[in-house]
Amino acid sequence: MALATPYLMFIGDAPDQLAAKVAIGVVHWRPQWCKGQLRLAGCKADLGIPDMTIEDAVEAGCRTLVVGVANRGGVIPDHWTGAIVQAIEAGMDVAAGLHRRLSDVPAIAQAAKAHGRTLTDARHPSRDFDVAGGQPRPGRRLLTVGTDVSVGKMFTSLAIEREMQARGMNADFRATGQTGIFIAGDGASVDAVVADFIAGAAEWLTPANAPDHWDVVEGQGSLFHASYSGVTLGLIHGARPHALVLCHDAARTEMRGTPGVPVPSLEDCIAVNERMARMFEPDARVVGVSVNTSSMDDARAAAYLSEVSQRLNVPAVDAVRTGVGPIVDAIGKP
Amino acid sequence: MALATPYLMFIGDAPDQLAAKVAIGVVHWRPQWCKGQLRLAGCKADLGIPDMTIEDAVEAGCRTLVVGVANRGGVIPDHWTGAIVQAIEAGMDVAAGLHRRLSDVPAIAQAAKAHGRTLTDARHPSRDFDVAGGQPRPGRRLLTVGTDVSVGKMFTSLAIEREMQARGMNADFRATGQTGIFIAGDGASVDAVVADFIAGAAEWLTPANAPDHWDVVEGQGSLFHASYSGVTLGLIHGARPHALVLCHDAARTEMRGTPGVPVPSLEDCIAVNERMARMFEPDARVVGVSVNTSSMDDARAAAYLSEVSQRLNVPAVDAVRTGVGPIVDAIGKP
Repeated sequence: MALATPYLMFIGDAPDQLAAKVAIGVVHWRPQWCKGQLRLAGCKADLGIPDMTIEDAVEAGCRTLVVGVANRGGVIPDHWTGAIVQAIEAGMDVAAGLHRRLSDVPAIAQAAKAHGRTLTDARHPSRDFDVAGGQPRPGRRLLTVGTDVSVGKMFTSLAIEREMQARGMNADFRATGQTGIFIAGDGASVDAVVADFIAGAAEWLTPANAPDHWDVVEGQGSLFHASYSGVTLGLIHGARPHALVLCHDAARTEMRGTPGVPVPSLEDCIAVNERMARMFEPDARVVGVSVNTSSMDDARAAAYLSEVSQRLNVPAVDAVRTGVGPIVDAIGKP
Repeated sequence: MALATPYLMFIGDAPDQLAAKVAIGVVHWRPQWCKGQLRLAGCKADLGIPDMTIEDAVEAGCRTLVVGVANRGGVIPDHWTGAIVQAIEAGMDVAAGLHRRLSDVPAIAQAAKAHGRTLTDARHPSRDFDVAGGQPRPGRRLLTVGTDVSVGKMFTSLAIEREMQARGMNADFRATGQTGIFIAGDGASVDAVVADFIAGAAEWLTPANAPDHWDVVEGQGSLFHASYSGVTLGLIHGARPHALVLCHDAARTEMRGTPGVPVPSLEDCIAVNERMARMFEPDARVVGVSVNTSSMDDARAAAYLSEVSQRLNVPAVDAVRTGVGPIVDAIGKP
């Protein structure tokens, strides 16, 4: 894939900020790539970056129109097509993360063909992956795992990449989901590949690297989630992490999407994730816990993180409230 | 899917018995469905059932031509097309388990359309699956798991189904791979579905059933195999087995396809499989071990099975040599 940057962020007629959350994530983590936003009449979201026409964006050097808005059913509505086609005609590629493919809209497919532009659907694999080879390889790898889905694995991974780079460490975020792929400019939607190739896609994403280089891999699912645990295990066995960071939402009591199933304890989650990772990287360990404490006031959150850290004997942070510095401190310590 | 029976088994110009192993498996487990074989000039394999022309097969009531032969690269060679088209024109459906789809051959696709016949590619999912709901459901479920891939999980599952049925138990084999699907007449190729739907496909395969009914589910991969562990875990969490049967090849020292990776101990394999299964079915346990001892003479095999059984405190059998009776004896015992 490898998206061409910088981006013009398209948020159509998003009815609220939540509908534009993909675009908001990209602007948050890659402001230098997001030159402007393109909004249609009725748009109620605002990315806080300059409004641009297609002409403005071309002038500003934008090379890809990123569709960063969700729509009912994941389709591309007719009234978006004009702007998308116009961007293609002006020489831009288009990237989207909707269920329906860009190329399924005839006008978009025809324009891309006529103008030789690339259409990227980040939710669908854009290449064939091999079956995982299961071999050791140089380079250091960190993977975020979770007690549940949607507990901040992407956010934590990006915060760790940023912290490592700020310290002069050699680190790259590796994306496994659509928003992450826009942020990294490349990646593999591991939950969208054919099941036999999950670990192979994760190996492709984290190839041999310099001994001091860190791949910081965006986790998916949870080993304890009945619906998605296969994706999680394939990612662990393909990425072969040396360091795991356990993500958790302090307010979550029930697994998201499977009513009645309780969230596992942090202790169980650490034990099982370490057991599975150590099959192939015997020194793999959970180096820290990253908790979403947004349900708590400052004092309660501080007490909670302190208690968790003492109980588990690893740093416990909230990536938003405290930053991930203590986890990066702990990496590499015995 | 649900294939129409009985079958005419097509083995083309198979160069040896091994090339026809899919067909051999189907004839072994479902002799009553396999009315005859269709062989082309040069065929060196023999299923031991009557040779039939298409006309003979129609006369005998055959409703599906099963392509039970492997070919280099999983393609359908031109010189098979004539016989396949002729079967369609005579009113038969066609099922194959090759990488290339039957419908990718224009003459076959056109004939099927013209005559209203069904083409089934058992290696590809034939329906959309939901994301797994992760809910408990009635019925009893047994799943075969393995120390490695290709250690007899399908054979063991079918032997258990046969043994249970012989005892008057209410049991059905549930297929998760291409040969198994021909044998069951239906199923889900769980390693070929999109990763997010592995557990959902396994749930579809093992729906709510009578309290005394056993689904005997064909396992795939191994939790210890770097390439396929995700498929295995999704299958465990979707099928929610109460009973696990651990399959093993006594001659195997290295994991198939990942050089240098040792086969895990039976103890480790039992512990990890039980840990993962108990997340959702707290009483799940390994009820027996099924070992391929074909590398040993009779005395050595008997001693090996006896030692394994005593060490692990569960029955240890060779499904070919000893049958699976002791495992079925153990099911339901506390």
